[in-house]
Amino acid sequence: MEVLEAIKTRRSVRKFSSEPVPEEALRTVLEAARWAPSWANTQCWEIVVVKDPGKKKALSDLLAPERNPAKEAVAQAPVLLAICGKKGVSGFYKGRPVTDKGDWLMFDVALAVQNICLAAHSLGLGTVIVGALNHEKASEVLGLPEEIELVVLIPLGRPAHEPKTPPRKELTEFVFSEEYGKLYFA
Amino acid sequence: MEVLEAIKTRRSVRKFSSEPVPEEALRTVLEAARWAPSWANTQCWEIVVVKDPGKKKALSDLLAPERNPAKEAVAQAPVLLAICGKKGVSGFYKGRPVTDKGDWLMFDVALAVQNICLAAHSLGLGTVIVGALNHEKASEVLGLPEEIELVVLIPLGRPAHEPKTPPRKELTEFVFSEEYGKLYFA
Repeated sequence: MEVLEAIKTRRSVRKFSSEPVPEEALRTVLEAARWAPSWANTQCWEIVVVKDPGKKKALSDLLAPERNPAKEAVAQAPVLLAICGKKGVSGFYKGRPVTDKGDWLMFDVALAVQNICLAAHSLGLGTVIVGALNHEKASEVLGLPEEIELVVLIPLGRPAHEPKTPPRKELTEFVFSEEYGKLYFA
Repeated sequence: MEVLEAIKTRRSVRKFSSEPVPEEALRTVLEAARWAPSWANTQCWEIVVVKDPGKKKALSDLLAPERNPAKEAVAQAPVLLAICGKKGVSGFYKGRPVTDKGDWLMFDVALAVQNICLAAHSLGLGTVIVGALNHEKASEVLGLPEEIELVVLIPLGRPAHEPKTPPRKELTEFVFSEEYGKLYFA
C-alpha cells in the first residue's frame, strides 16, 4: 500500500475478528517500530506482546472508567501490544535532560507507534491506540520494572467493522506562515 | 512508495539542496500530518511554516550548544516546519487530565511528525527531527502564545547527501512475551 494512501485510510479499529494474527505479519509490524527515528538513535521503546486471554481481560479492566470505546477491543483482539519506553534515555545527554521538557520518551514511543499503525494497516490489520488507562496497575500486570514506563496499549487484529472517518481540521485552521496566527493557506 | 519500504528507507537528512519545495509537495506533507490519529480526535497540532532566511538562521542559533549535526540543516533547508501543540487538550477529559502522564501533547504531535517524515520521504524529500533546542526562545521567534507549545523543528527539502543507516536494536532485544523480561523471539 502507498504511504499517502495508508496515512489517509488508516482508521482506529475497535472490533476485531477472532482470526489469529499470522506471526509473519506480527514480525513485520514490530520491524516497523524498530525502524522509527529516535532521539540520537537511542531507541527507548520496549514492547510486550500479550496474547493470553486472562491478561488481556485484566488490562481491559484497567481502562479509564469514562466511556471508553476501546475497552472490548483490548480484551478481544487476538494480539495486544503494550508499548513502553525506557526512562531517562530520550532527551538526555550524559545523564542530564537537554531540554526543559525532560524525558522525550512519549515523543519517541509515538514515532514507533505510528509506524506500527501504518504497517499494520498496509497488511490489512487494524489497530487503535489506547492511552486512557491506569498505567500504574497495568505496569504491574505486565511486570514492568521501575525504569520502564508503559505508554499505550494497541489491540491488533483483522478488523470486524468498517470504522467511519472522523472529521479533521482543515489545513487553513492549523498551518501558519512565518509566525503563529498568520495563516499559510489564506 | 510502499509503506514498509518508506518506513525502512527513511533516513534523517541533514544536508539539503537549495531547490525550493514545490507547494504541491508541501501541501501533501501537511495533509499527512492532518490525518494522524490523536487523543479522542482532538488534533492538538499546530504548524508554522518558516521560509524566511533570517528567521531560519535565528532558530538555528537556538539549537542546543552540544555538538548538534542538524544546526546547519535548520538554517539551510528551503522549508522549516515548526511543529507545535495546543496545551491542555490531548489527554484531558472535561478539562482534567485522564492519566498520571498529564498532557499527551508530545505523544500526539509525534504521531503527526512521523506521518510528515514518511510522506516527505515518499515524495523524495528529506527531513530530520530537531528537538534539542531552546524551546522558550524559539517560541518567541515564532510568536507562539502561552497556550501553544513548540515541540520540534523539521527542516524539509531535497536531500543533498545519502545518509548512512544508523544501526537498530534487534527485535530480540526489545520484544517480550506476556510480561517484561521474557523474550518473544528467543
